[in-house]
Amino acid sequence: MRIKVINPNTTSSMTEVIAAAARAVAAPGTEIVAATSPMGPASIEGHYDEAVSVIGLLEEVRRGETEGADGYVIACFGDPGLLAVREIARGPVLGIAEAAMHVASFVATGFSIVTTLGRTRIIAEHLVRNYGMEHHCRRVRATELPVLELENPASGARRIITEECRRALAEDGSGAIVLGCAGMADLAAHIAREIGAPVIDGVAAAVKLVEALVGLGLGTSKTGDLAWPLPKRYTGPLAHLEPFSGGSGAS
Amino acid sequence: MRIKVINPNTTSSMTEVIAAAARAVAAPGTEIVAATSPMGPASIEGHYDEAVSVIGLLEEVRRGETEGADGYVIACFGDPGLLAVREIARGPVLGIAEAAMHVASFVATGFSIVTTLGRTRIIAEHLVRNYGMEHHCRRVRATELPVLELENPASGARRIITEECRRALAEDGSGAIVLGCAGMADLAAHIAREIGAPVIDGVAAAVKLVEALVGLGLGTSKTGDLAWPLPKRYTGPLAHLEPFSGGSGAS
Amino acid sequence: MRIKVINPNTTSSMTEVIAAAARAVAAPGTEIVAATSPMGPASIEGHYDEAVSVIGLLEEVRRGETEGADGYVIACFGDPGLLAVREIARGPVLGIAEAAMHVASFVATGFSIVTTLGRTRIIAEHLVRNYGMEHHCRRVRATELPVLELENPASGARRIITEECRRALAEDGSGAIVLGCAGMADLAAHIAREIGAPVIDGVAAAVKLVEALVGLGLGTSKTGDLAWPLPKRYTGPLAHLEPFSGGSGAS
Amino acid sequence: MRIKVINPNTTSSMTEVIAAAARAVAAPGTEIVAATSPMGPASIEGHYDEAVSVIGLLEEVRRGETEGADGYVIACFGDPGLLAVREIARGPVLGIAEAAMHVASFVATGFSIVTTLGRTRIIAEHLVRNYGMEHHCRRVRATELPVLELENPASGARRIITEECRRALAEDGSGAIVLGCAGMADLAAHIAREIGAPVIDGVAAAVKLVEALVGLGLGTSKTGDLAWPLPKRYTGPLAHLEPFSGGSGAS
Amino acid sequence: MRIKVINPNTTSSMTEVIAAAARAVAAPGTEIVAATSPMGPASIEGHYDEAVSVIGLLEEVRRGETEGADGYVIACFGDPGLLAVREIARGPVLGIAEAAMHVASFVATGFSIVTTLGRTRIIAEHLVRNYGMEHHCRRVRATELPVLELENPASGARRIITEECRRALAEDGSGAIVLGCAGMADLAAHIAREIGAPVIDGVAAAVKLVEALVGLGLGTSKTGDLAWPLPKRYTGPLAHLEPFSGGSGAS
Amino acid sequence: MRIKVINPNTTSSMTEVIAAAARAVAAPGTEIVAATSPMGPASIEGHYDEAVSVIGLLEEVRRGETEGADGYVIACFGDPGLLAVREIARGPVLGIAEAAMHVASFVATGFSIVTTLGRTRIIAEHLVRNYGMEHHCRRVRATELPVLELENPASGARRIITEECRRALAEDGSGAIVLGCAGMADLAAHIAREIGAPVIDGVAAAVKLVEALVGLGLGTSKTGDLAWPLPKRYTGPLAHLEPFSGGSGAS
Repeated sequence: MRIKVINPNTTSSMTEVIAAAARAVAAPGTEIVAATSPMGPASIEGHYDEAVSVIGLLEEVRRGETEGADGYVIACFGDPGLLAVREIARGPVLGIAEAAMHVASFVATGFSIVTTLGRTRIIAEHLVRNYGMEHHCRRVRATELPVLELENPASGARRIITEECRRALAEDGSGAIVLGCAGMADLAAHIAREIGAPVIDGVAAAVKLVEALVGLGLGTSKTGDLAWPLPKRYTGPLAHLEPFSGGSGAS
Repeated sequence: MRIKVINPNTTSSMTEVIAAAARAVAAPGTEIVAATSPMGPASIEGHYDEAVSVIGLLEEVRRGETEGADGYVIACFGDPGLLAVREIARGPVLGIAEAAMHVASFVATGFSIVTTLGRTRIIAEHLVRNYGMEHHCRRVRATELPVLELENPASGARRIITEECRRALAEDGSGAIVLGCAGMADLAAHIAREIGAPVIDGVAAAVKLVEALVGLGLGTSKTGDLAWPLPKRYTGPLAHLEPFSGGSGAS
Repeated sequence: MRIKVINPNTTSSMTEVIAAAARAVAAPGTEIVAATSPMGPASIEGHYDEAVSVIGLLEEVRRGETEGADGYVIACFGDPGLLAVREIARGPVLGIAEAAMHVASFVATGFSIVTTLGRTRIIAEHLVRNYGMEHHCRRVRATELPVLELENPASGARRIITEECRRALAEDGSGAIVLGCAGMADLAAHIAREIGAPVIDGVAAAVKLVEALVGLGLGTSKTGDLAWPLPKRYTGPLAHLEPFSGGSGAS
Repeated sequence: MRIKVINPNTTSSMTEVIAAAARAVAAPGTEIVAATSPMGPASIEGHYDEAVSVIGLLEEVRRGETEGADGYVIACFGDPGLLAVREIARGPVLGIAEAAMHVASFVATGFSIVTTLGRTRIIAEHLVRNYGMEHHCRRVRATELPVLELENPASGARRIITEECRRALAEDGSGAIVLGCAGMADLAAHIAREIGAPVIDGVAAAVKLVEALVGLGLGTSKTGDLAWPLPKRYTGPLAHLEPFSGGSGAS
Repeated sequence: MRIKVINPNTTSSMTEVIAAAARAVAAPGTEIVAATSPMGPASIEGHYDEAVSVIGLLEEVRRGETEGADGYVIACFGDPGLLAVREIARGPVLGIAEAAMHVASFVATGFSIVTTLGRTRIIAEHLVRNYGMEHHCRRVRATELPVLELENPASGARRIITEECRRALAEDGSGAIVLGCAGMADLAAHIAREIGAPVIDGVAAAVKLVEALVGLGLGTSKTGDLAWPLPKRYTGPLAHLEPFSGGSGAS
Repeated sequence: MRIKVINPNTTSSMTEVIAAAARAVAAPGTEIVAATSPMGPASIEGHYDEAVSVIGLLEEVRRGETEGADGYVIACFGDPGLLAVREIARGPVLGIAEAAMHVASFVATGFSIVTTLGRTRIIAEHLVRNYGMEHHCRRVRATELPVLELENPASGARRIITEECRRALAEDGSGAIVLGCAGMADLAAHIAREIGAPVIDGVAAAVKLVEALVGLGLGTSKTGDLAWPLPKRYTGPLAHLEPFSGGSGAS
């Protein structure tokens, strides 16, 4: 099975962290194809960054359909473009926020999300509502660490995040922690040991859920609003994103 | 006051319908600047079309900021890119679905939305929830008319939509109708006379709400998650969308 | 266009503050007719005050209908009698809490309400739910200033309210402030400058929204539950409030 | 124990039906004091009727406080003025819609409301939400019988309502019926026998709940927003409704 | 009327406290039959304890049906087995959490629950949602007192709980307190005097609500999902719980 | 990895269907241990059946903990005892309703549940709410097939269920189907081919989700309310269910 894990920002060092986290949990027969968005923002820290990041993501998924990907992971905690991607994918597609929250709800009656900047908290809160997690998610906590500082050893990111996770357990009454950024993918195991409770990285969670769905023989439903895009004219600089004329969007 | 009304699809004949509807209600001192997206889909009928349409929309807003626009209307009923646009706009920004639903809630305790294809109904339903209109919106009704057929006299669109609006009043217990596509902007007055109840076109509604906000001296809040995008590197074909380095995103 | 702005309490000095706020934002062609309730409580600070205040309000609206009012503003933050007024009005009717909250949701993803006494907070919270603003309104904050103290320079009201607004931004993660009393109508501009974020006074907001609705040719729907009251016998001291027998409630 | 049951409309024949229903279930030591509103509409069939009806109701409650009433029932299915009445009452106060819905939720996992005119359905739906009954109330059904026709033997009201109740069980998956008008108080037992499921009249339900609360030694909380109204000046024709100056609102 | 009050744990000294609270409020003609579960946990402090406790409870209800019980009270704040019990009972069944929350909503617009261990708070929170009390219940507060410590004078339970109730009024803006454990049944009157606000013990509340329902002639609906269990084979150690073959579950 | 799949009813032929469905999707290294409840009802078709079924389930989980089970599947669509089981399990525990709904939400924006008897629909509806699936689940449809009839070829179950699934797609606007009974586990693939949309059997879904969680190194959180049961005395016929005294509930 081939799972394409796409980092929608352009920072390839972050893609490496993501790919490592994906491979660490992949089943023996699973091939992880990691991709970095070929265009757009170096990190995604707001609605604007997120909106622009979707184009590179869509291009990678279109390429994935021709390369034979069996499923996709969108490796940014805002789950940008999730439904748009599902329209052009035959196999299952998981966002890492979606994956992490659902997994957390299976192992605890309440969880907290620990994320980066306060200004992105609203994005997580919108996802909590979209996924029906209002009663499971006790709180979204911002550490005010910029995304790219996660890679900077001098930032103290690991310590700051671990402490915020510890506070979340104590103050929010949560039984599990969801890490709110793909750039934290390498921290989950360490923090779990430190705080003695499940800590969920969405990249790993999404890979395992895509494996599960493919194992069930399930792809994205092509009945209803996730059916292939209607054939129509696309023009201008994005004309190459026009859905394929062969009756389906991307095959 | 200058209000930029942006059609996020590339069909300029639809922009003309939109511009006419906007000008028909604009106050004496209001200048309507209508723009057609320079790229992307000819109509927006799904999550994929919508995601791609955001880029052309953002480019038009960036241009608007340099042209001195006092406010913006996003003239597609899915309100694509609404929060992203707000991040890069100084003045107020209204989506036409948002505008129409709020206005409907001021004149009736319940309304119905009459839209185009069934596959876009889910988009309207998500907006209903995002805007807190679950208790006001009684039902979203699809006519199965493709967007571009609205312009085709042979489609019988006016009659089909009028009949659906009539059924909505009778069956849904609604007191008002929201037209669910920018391409229906020229039908509101006619249908209102036919059915004897308020019929709200989002383009006109959004223009009047932007006028109201500018009249109140209000722009988009630059405190919190709608603040100017953080300065950062954008690369590749979308590098030109990089936020301005002068501390603000688009000025 | 003639907009009747009704202060449902009997304190005419407060009506003057309200009228000034309304006129300050009214468009050139808009005439503001300000009225003070002819009976009932001097201020509205609870469910009982509010219930009694509705009678004077209804009388003023009935008078407005004969005077040719094109729309109405109910200038008390509890929006007393809103749906009852809509039944007897041809034109649009806005409550100031309703207007302020909707406007706030257009310029920020979250807002806080700063109001007077803690005991009226429940009224604001009920309105937040009725208007579908649970996800936009982050918190309702009471200053424990009685309504009539707002007019007393010795009360320090301006300073106290400004500080509460500042705390709201910092602690609630809000991007805008809604002032929770008609008696604060003169403070919005000052506080906005002080805290650097949008501050919304409902009186001004409601006037502009009524202008917008009238500009759209919209009145209150007379289809459904806001139709003219059914003709019937009213007796006793309130017999004069009996709906007109001519088929409509108030014409 | 003395329970004052107030009919907020002015139709004394309806008060008689209400009083009989109340007395039929009252415990041995309970005295039912039935009162008809001294002013206002002959029936309550909309927001406007309801708003006006509150004044007569408040007067009767003020009188009740001096007469030694131990609790109150508001005998109109819209529960007009419920929180206002609670502010000026020492003992417990129940609305009949409130009482009926809560009781229904104790004997079935889902119930339907069968009411009079379609235009009042919105009032019932708002109460359903206020009381947290969204998941218990499966549907509000209108029979289009005007309130005063319930007393007219030629209207066929009993048959029409019984049939609607039967349909409710079959179509809504409900296990119990709530009758949506005080004027139906005499029909509950008959319909229950006919349809073989619990049928709840709010007048009887409210009397028993007030008895229960008084039996528990509970009155309305005077801590928080239901505390006695703040002392203040009331003027004009409603000046006599001014809260008592002795520190409490009505004693 | 005979009301069977069942303590689903096996601690008979707690049953005595419960029985005394029930008898203290019972009407003259009401006989309270108190029962202690014949099996299972000595106290209920988690999902597991609760699940096991249901068997003894069901056995006592089956016995109650043959003994002529007119209604039941489940005297544990988690309301274990509520719907299962309703299936096998002819008369009304109330859980004490259910009873207390509904009663609290009649005397205050907001209440707080003061309970025992933090780990059982989630159970109360689930009930708050099931009963539609999200808007009435302001907060669930844990004292970290184990259930059986409530009977230990050296635990300081009375003082600790009273102080928590006082804080609830001050910090949560609540007008009433719900005691979150059957073992607190004897504290309500004392705490109410101390804090000057309604304090509701669910045992007493449930007894009065069952009396009210029986007084209304209402039993559990046997239409729909609370109908007698379908006849079927039960085997193994719990074979004796097989529903009666005579067409009804337990008669 | 060893996953214990427990059928909480006593019908071993149904366990065989369940076991086959589980093994059909299990990964190479996964051992499926299927167990039939040793006591209680032959099928679960109501709240009472469900409550009683929990005891046998808990016994099988306690045994599973000593046998080295790495995770559990509760193979009844009501997910009986889910949180109780989680308290006494070290590894992850999934209910089949929970698993199926979450999986359905990954492949479609809306799904319908097709279940057995109308009287069990309420159980599914409660789970929909508990799992936050109100916006994803469009409708719960009953076929009125008793559970044990699913095994009877003469019942026409396969055809009846297939037709109901087809109607669900057409009428509910759903993109996927969730089968609402463990006894339907062998029908998913067939129906999916017939209707051309994803059909999800909870048994298979739960097995794959447990595999995913174990693959992520995640067990049930032992922080908070899912921690091991508190040590305490259990007496009577269920004394053997007393939590282990060694500090943990079941090890």
